[in-house]
Amino acid sequence: MARTEISHYGEFGLIRHLTEKFSTRNASTLKAIGDDAAVLDYSTNKILITTDLLLEGIHFDLVYTPLKHLGYKSAVVNFSDIYAMNGAPKQITVSLGISKRFSVEDLEALYSGIQLACEHYGVDLIGGDTSASLTGLSISITCIGEAKKEDIVYRNGAKENDIICVSGNLGAAYMGLQLLEREKAVFAGNENVQPDFEGKSYILQRQLKPEARKDIIEELHKRGIRPTAMMDISDGLSSELMHICSQSNTGCRVYEDKIPIHYEAASMAEELNMNIVTAALNGGEDYELLFTVSLDDYDKILSMEHVGIVGYITKPELGLYLVGRQGEEIELKAQGWNSLQESKTETPS
Amino acid sequence: MARTEISHYGEFGLIRHLTEKFSTRNASTLKAIGDDAAVLDYSTNKILITTDLLLEGIHFDLVYTPLKHLGYKSAVVNFSDIYAMNGAPKQITVSLGISKRFSVEDLEALYSGIQLACEHYGVDLIGGDTSASLTGLSISITCIGEAKKEDIVYRNGAKENDIICVSGNLGAAYMGLQLLEREKAVFAGNENVQPDFEGKSYILQRQLKPEARKDIIEELHKRGIRPTAMMDISDGLSSELMHICSQSNTGCRVYEDKIPIHYEAASMAEELNMNIVTAALNGGEDYELLFTVSLDDYDKILSMEHVGIVGYITKPELGLYLVGRQGEEIELKAQGWNSLQESKTETPS
Repeated sequence: MARTEISHYGEFGLIRHLTEKFSTRNASTLKAIGDDAAVLDYSTNKILITTDLLLEGIHFDLVYTPLKHLGYKSAVVNFSDIYAMNGAPKQITVSLGISKRFSVEDLEALYSGIQLACEHYGVDLIGGDTSASLTGLSISITCIGEAKKEDIVYRNGAKENDIICVSGNLGAAYMGLQLLEREKAVFAGNENVQPDFEGKSYILQRQLKPEARKDIIEELHKRGIRPTAMMDISDGLSSELMHICSQSNTGCRVYEDKIPIHYEAASMAEELNMNIVTAALNGGEDYELLFTVSLDDYDKILSMEHVGIVGYITKPELGLYLVGRQGEEIELKAQGWNSLQESKTETPS
Repeated sequence: MARTEISHYGEFGLIRHLTEKFSTRNASTLKAIGDDAAVLDYSTNKILITTDLLLEGIHFDLVYTPLKHLGYKSAVVNFSDIYAMNGAPKQITVSLGISKRFSVEDLEALYSGIQLACEHYGVDLIGGDTSASLTGLSISITCIGEAKKEDIVYRNGAKENDIICVSGNLGAAYMGLQLLEREKAVFAGNENVQPDFEGKSYILQRQLKPEARKDIIEELHKRGIRPTAMMDISDGLSSELMHICSQSNTGCRVYEDKIPIHYEAASMAEELNMNIVTAALNGGEDYELLFTVSLDDYDKILSMEHVGIVGYITKPELGLYLVGRQGEEIELKAQGWNSLQESKTETPS
């Protein structure tokens, strides 16, 4: 494959080259790339802002992450935060720190993934910054979204007796990562071995090309359900439940046998002799939605596809517990990822 | 000095600890740190968004940059972009990538600089992300500002015969950097030598603790002057003039003897046997404002302090030229910084 050095374009030329294929689609985007700042118009709705910094070796490993997938994922994890407020993502800025080892073609691949995500979710690229890096690749994305004031859902609104719901299934992204790490280790031992990904495409996709649950937000809207509290599951169910309960001043009970698990994730866990429930509770990177709804919405939730009820909210003095298959109660702990204690390439921020 | 390891707090505890001293002051900030996204209300004005990624070894050198100064500067360079749109900065998000070599006290120093900048410019910290880094320090800041639609000034509005104005003076930040680099090299040769900063405090401050020209924007407003085009000077006058002229489809003439130079910068250049005009044209990091105004505003501009007239806008076919002291014409080239060709710790994005 051709390799064009980044110096061929220069800083401003490079940004222009990488972004010229992006068009804007939202009425709220008045001015995108090309000035000191972008200009937006949100006169009728409120503005949501979220930001993520992704660093090579911490949040991603380029040995097994294609740059196009990385671009897609970097954008989508930010969209997920906006959906988790019950809003819609509309604009992103993308800043890159890149070392000389990257070619223009590498960056084109990264941007093509970002572009695909923008098209899929209806988001405009409005700015950013590209600079040299002495080491690896740094990706900083800020996402701007919108919501009507009365629609915004915070983490602090859960009430006693509310139902706890989870979209999709949990633990698959983590098992995908374990698979990739295993094959990386095998490959390092013998470069003639081809990776064995047979029957593992679902968990690989969950790790390499996750989606944000736009569909769930739209479905909740259609059915007139406004969650009382909501967040996206990026650090694991356990850690996120602790956020919601602590900010809402409640306790909770979650049933082990209600935690949604995909069969490919379960089978991978068995193969690796790991506990899939632990992966679902603490693995992270699922980008599913965790939300609570009033008991009044019970029937509406039951009729929804891709949403499961995993437990309920209690008084705060009852604590946060997982109820096991034999009825035993295990206190929930945020073993979720702590990037500052363990520097592994395991999980995202 | 005490050293507290970052692991003492954990990720969420650390963010809480570092941000608990920040209070919000702007009515447009509905919800700051603590949820999936911050919530803002800009129902009457337009929104301005800008972002910068600062990487250790590229944009700053911690050998001679105190972390508090770095925090202050990281925030201010973003405010500068918002002022350059004729707006006012209102919110920032701060994402950090930090390696284990940093202690909690280091991060407190960095945040105290950010806080000082926020207080000085009336800006709210509304969110961010803190994660581990395998190498140095990464700082990604996004700034949100506001402006009335009719007030926003782009780069593309300059017209033939408009006057070209510059605030403050140019080249001092670059000369401050040269001084710091010289003293670093001396210190590396003999650690007993104390750095010699006598009579150099102005250029050091311009490099280590620059200010954004809020005062100029307010003064322009007060006098009813709306620039036809404007940007901040971060890459050097030459590079910025090329942006304005190319986006406005004009040429320009700039007079060498009109370029504002501070005597400390001139004296430092002489000491180092460098050309101060070259530093002013291509040095960067001045964070002064470059703007064009209609000839009708000539008298109003003349009466303003801290603003100098450096030239005028021409038809595009007349090109972009610097007029030397003997009347000779030298074509302007964007020798300004190109971070992607030369990885030096010289200049910002």
